[in-house]
Amino acid sequence: MFEVTVAARFEAAHRLVGDFGPAARTHGHTYRLEVTVRGEALAPDGTLLDVGELRQAVDALAGSLHYTDLQEVPGLSGVNTTVEHVAQHCWQELASAVQGRGMSTMRVAVWESEDVGAALDAPLAL
Amino acid sequence: MFEVTVAARFEAAHRLVGDFGPAARTHGHTYRLEVTVRGEALAPDGTLLDVGELRQAVDALAGSLHYTDLQEVPGLSGVNTTVEHVAQHCWQELASAVQGRGMSTMRVAVWESEDVGAALDAPLAL
Amino acid sequence: MFEVTVAARFEAAHRLVGDFGPAARTHGHTYRLEVTVRGEALAPDGTLLDVGELRQAVDALAGSLHYTDLQEVPGLSGVNTTVEHVAQHCWQELASAVQGRGMSTMRVAVWESEDVGAALDAPLAL
Repeated sequence: MFEVTVAARFEAAHRLVGDFGPAARTHGHTYRLEVTVRGEALAPDGTLLDVGELRQAVDALAGSLHYTDLQEVPGLSGVNTTVEHVAQHCWQELASAVQGRGMSTMRVAVWESEDVGAALDAPLAL
Repeated sequence: MFEVTVAARFEAAHRLVGDFGPAARTHGHTYRLEVTVRGEALAPDGTLLDVGELRQAVDALAGSLHYTDLQEVPGLSGVNTTVEHVAQHCWQELASAVQGRGMSTMRVAVWESEDVGAALDAPLAL
Repeated sequence: MFEVTVAARFEAAHRLVGDFGPAARTHGHTYRLEVTVRGEALAPDGTLLDVGELRQAVDALAGSLHYTDLQEVPGLSGVNTTVEHVAQHCWQELASAVQGRGMSTMRVAVWESEDVGAALDAPLAL
């Protein structure tokens, strides 16, 4: 199985609703967004998916979250902005860009810091 | 599959017994401990496992190893303190804190440096 | 499942052939090479595979790529030096050193930067 990973960063505010201690206060992180796609075979040009093309999709997504309050982002409003939900949102936003290209799975990891992160790893429509 | 990861560090001495060259001398590392739990579904509050709760368990474990000689740690005395055995010890110490919570697997990685590490990835009792 | 990872770096020039924008110009990277082997059981000395031995194989491979033009490396000449192909080349070069030792799979990741990488994860002959 081959994998390609592209990462980007975004800076955003959020707060959790519920019994989460200091995380219930509005605060923020420099998030790291890591996107990995997997597939069995390389194209004749030696790519699983052109890194430049994946970079465009990842950067556009990171841009849509940069300098925002995550509570106000379409797709996250109305849900708790846990790092798990942010990873799920990013997975859903990216799926359309990479589906139907022969890749079998995608893992989207979101890190709030280098020591705390979450990911969603799920099958893609081939 | 969702994943949540929390990492911590500890500084400890150790030495290997056997034909391991300079690693047979007492030395030490600033270890990085990375704990990842996985499960299929998020709770209504948007968490797989509350990061704050996982943080407490990981920090308590790192604290039990910080500023120790690993040969003298209960659970490691009598075994070779390879990075594989340290990862296995950490897995076993953490399992009780996260078992029975609906998570399917846990991966515990221990890094002696940014370039050398080991991990144990194994099923949890649901 | 246990895992052991050893990483190294090498600095090399390359360029892509095809419609890859600026990547079609000769340029270079400080690559990071991460090699992970996996297996079910530790040896009596507490190792899955002696880190020192894996280090020798990984460093020898990194040395063979350091300060080269990847187009001129045997095993890469005649193919596009995408990060996927570089990872595949490294996997193939390392397989002979770790096969037949009871390990089930090996993942070789190659990073062009901390934000762009590729990997090949495939079974080893036990």
